[in-house]
Amino acid sequence: MKLLSAHRAPNPRRVLMFIAEKGITGIEVVNVDLNAGAHRTPEFLAKSPLAKVPALELDDGRVLTETRAICTYLEGLYPGPNLMGEDATTRAFIEMADRRVELTLLLQIANAIRHTHPGLAALEQPQFADFGRSQGEKLLETAKVFDQLLQQQAWMAGERFSIADITAFCALEFARGLIKFTPARNGLQALQAWRDRVAERPSAAV
Amino acid sequence: MKLLSAHRAPNPRRVLMFIAEKGITGIEVVNVDLNAGAHRTPEFLAKSPLAKVPALELDDGRVLTETRAICTYLEGLYPGPNLMGEDATTRAFIEMADRRVELTLLLQIANAIRHTHPGLAALEQPQFADFGRSQGEKLLETAKVFDQLLQQQAWMAGERFSIADITAFCALEFARGLIKFTPARNGLQALQAWRDRVAERPSAAV
Repeated sequence: MKLLSAHRAPNPRRVLMFIAEKGITGIEVVNVDLNAGAHRTPEFLAKSPLAKVPALELDDGRVLTETRAICTYLEGLYPGPNLMGEDATTRAFIEMADRRVELTLLLQIANAIRHTHPGLAALEQPQFADFGRSQGEKLLETAKVFDQLLQQQAWMAGERFSIADITAFCALEFARGLIKFTPARNGLQALQAWRDRVAERPSAAV
Repeated sequence: MKLLSAHRAPNPRRVLMFIAEKGITGIEVVNVDLNAGAHRTPEFLAKSPLAKVPALELDDGRVLTETRAICTYLEGLYPGPNLMGEDATTRAFIEMADRRVELTLLLQIANAIRHTHPGLAALEQPQFADFGRSQGEKLLETAKVFDQLLQQQAWMAGERFSIADITAFCALEFARGLIKFTPARNGLQALQAWRDRVAERPSAAV
């Protein structure tokens, strides 16, 4: 299998961290240079019609895109350690936690960065700076909700590490790097302590 | 079980249509009046901390939020007809199709409506009309990609009806109602024909 990735982008990093948590070896990682428009070439669009990374090329030639869908496939091939739930009910509750993180925290961070950062101007056109700044303000409210959650439980989906922790960690690392947002700077100690626990895992180094 | 829903909102409709396709009976549906702020009360936030509908109250008292997570749970309880894939690989490819629809088509439609429509001003503050209009323009490019896809296959995820068709149909119905966007008006005949096939299903009447 071959993973079409992009350095520093949060979604490819989610898959790389998932692979590292599973201890999967043998997947070739190929960098797609987004700033050079490598995701807009006819060759790439034939694999990923919406011009997105990550994309996983399977050995049978099919290509799977969408971060969580790639993880679902890999979880099927490599069941342990389980990161997405063993049965439909557990899968549903972890999916809920993962989607809450993805559709609020990660989406707000991505919008805040893509619409305000000069380094993202090649990828997000047109940029709407006022919208981006507003998303940054909403991010703080969202982060407070997760801080409250982590005062009551150890991990994003409950009492064990899961894909939802990977999504949230990659989102916060993206924010730390590009808009200097950290939970600690905003007084969110439980969220910061959780982030620091995840940062100690070997998979966080990918 | 009790489904906390909201009339006319696309995400609750996705769950209602999923329930109808499965032929599930006995779930009580309760309307949450978003315009009256019923999703911001302490009682509702205790069930859905991010103030979102739909939410499914289980018989054991737990509450499940997030559209796709609710569907994952219901698919576990009511396996037939299968709408999300029978094994990890099939699940992954249907999840890919569903996410492509949700994170482009539905998200752009939702942004276009929430940031431009006066009727959504109570839910989306502040509104950024320029951003909303830009999302409406990007929607047309996205719709073209799905039109091309449906020139090659019958349904969003391939050769059978799935949850991805439900997501796309509810997205397009939301757009038709509130920003008068239809595939036919934009020359996208394959997407329109697909939409019209879905509209004939009994589940489309929910």
